[in-house]
Amino acid sequence: MDITSDTHSQHISKQFNQELEELKTHLMTMGGQVEKQVQDAVTALLESDSRLGERVSDDDKAVNEMQLKIDDECTRILARRQPAASDLRLVLAVIRATSDLERIGDEASKIARNAVALSEAGNGPKGLVEVRHISEHVRKMVRDSLTAFARFDIDLALQVVHEDDAVDSEYTSAMRSLMTFMMEDPRSITSVLSVMWVLRALERVGDHANNLAEHVIYLVKGLDIRHIDPDELDEDALKGSS
Amino acid sequence: MDITSDTHSQHISKQFNQELEELKTHLMTMGGQVEKQVQDAVTALLESDSRLGERVSDDDKAVNEMQLKIDDECTRILARRQPAASDLRLVLAVIRATSDLERIGDEASKIARNAVALSEAGNGPKGLVEVRHISEHVRKMVRDSLTAFARFDIDLALQVVHEDDAVDSEYTSAMRSLMTFMMEDPRSITSVLSVMWVLRALERVGDHANNLAEHVIYLVKGLDIRHIDPDELDEDALKGSS
Repeated sequence: MDITSDTHSQHISKQFNQELEELKTHLMTMGGQVEKQVQDAVTALLESDSRLGERVSDDDKAVNEMQLKIDDECTRILARRQPAASDLRLVLAVIRATSDLERIGDEASKIARNAVALSEAGNGPKGLVEVRHISEHVRKMVRDSLTAFARFDIDLALQVVHEDDAVDSEYTSAMRSLMTFMMEDPRSITSVLSVMWVLRALERVGDHANNLAEHVIYLVKGLDIRHIDPDELDEDALKGSS
Repeated sequence: MDITSDTHSQHISKQFNQELEELKTHLMTMGGQVEKQVQDAVTALLESDSRLGERVSDDDKAVNEMQLKIDDECTRILARRQPAASDLRLVLAVIRATSDLERIGDEASKIARNAVALSEAGNGPKGLVEVRHISEHVRKMVRDSLTAFARFDIDLALQVVHEDDAVDSEYTSAMRSLMTFMMEDPRSITSVLSVMWVLRALERVGDHANNLAEHVIYLVKGLDIRHIDPDELDEDALKGSS
């Protein structure tokens, strides 16, 4: 649609591309920050480091500000540049992605608060093996979904969508063991509940990473796969040339 | 910006207004459906009605489809109409609102699943008084935030934002009582945990209603109050003429 023969239009188009590149960069910075928050929150829990746990909550403010700033950038681009087709999809995907990243940050804060509470209670809680395992899994999902976003990588995005099912079943089985711990030793109820909240938060992080991956598929293919069962996806069609 | 002297532009502008009105109507329909889901899920729990509980999960598919349809409408309006100022804010607010409504629907499904599990377990669980109380509160928040959206009503939106704090403290105190029940009677752990998941889901419904109210404030005032502490809001400035 651009009249690129016109130098003025070329100039505008170059500026616009630069704005879109910056938008992606800012999203990746926010993503990196959120990844670090999840990692720090889990480390705080596993190493009983309440000071690290408290720092995660402070970091969450920075993430919230990033979201407002990026959303504002998106609104300005929509108003001034009136993007169409793939440019419009990029802006919409970024708006959705900041919302998921912000919620991952919230979940990291919840994990950190439980880490602080558990470290103050003092006794080494049950279920940390499960926490470590699931946290590694969902952190990989977050990392992969961000990489997929940066590279417009459909294959990697689809991989994340499938991993979410594995995390859900790991979560269900971990919750079942924790319930058994509780019944065997009712004095552990308070601390086991804290670990349960942590697992729930990690499972939510996985859900949001899954959403991020779905935004990548929307972005690249213009196809909205939210609410489609991963097993029913026609992956060959998705992976084919658009 | 519209050149309303031109009959053609007038025609387009009228069509565009109609599209925006339809968008709002569709959002309200989705909102009504989600409200009903929350109500049915809680009724299923309180009345041990597992068939009603199962129906809520089925209804969730309809809500998911509504979200995809409305988001699609929004994308088309952005691409074709290139809205600016308050029209752009309306479209962006609707995109954010469908996401919150869809998540409220998800929480309703979780409540319904726990209702089915509890009704199969058979024993009247503890904590139902708290569930009834908090559910009435958050359902009012959802209803009010939707009314505020329909009427562009800032006062009502601010009221919802403040109510969320009340719900959070009701939630904390209910969780504390439930933990006591568990410790006093470890045989009740499974059913009390189910009720805890229900309370957590209701608290999340309240959070999403709060988000909906924040979208109304963004829509009417162009001001993004996400991440501002409700106690620090300058309400007089918000309520004054924009």
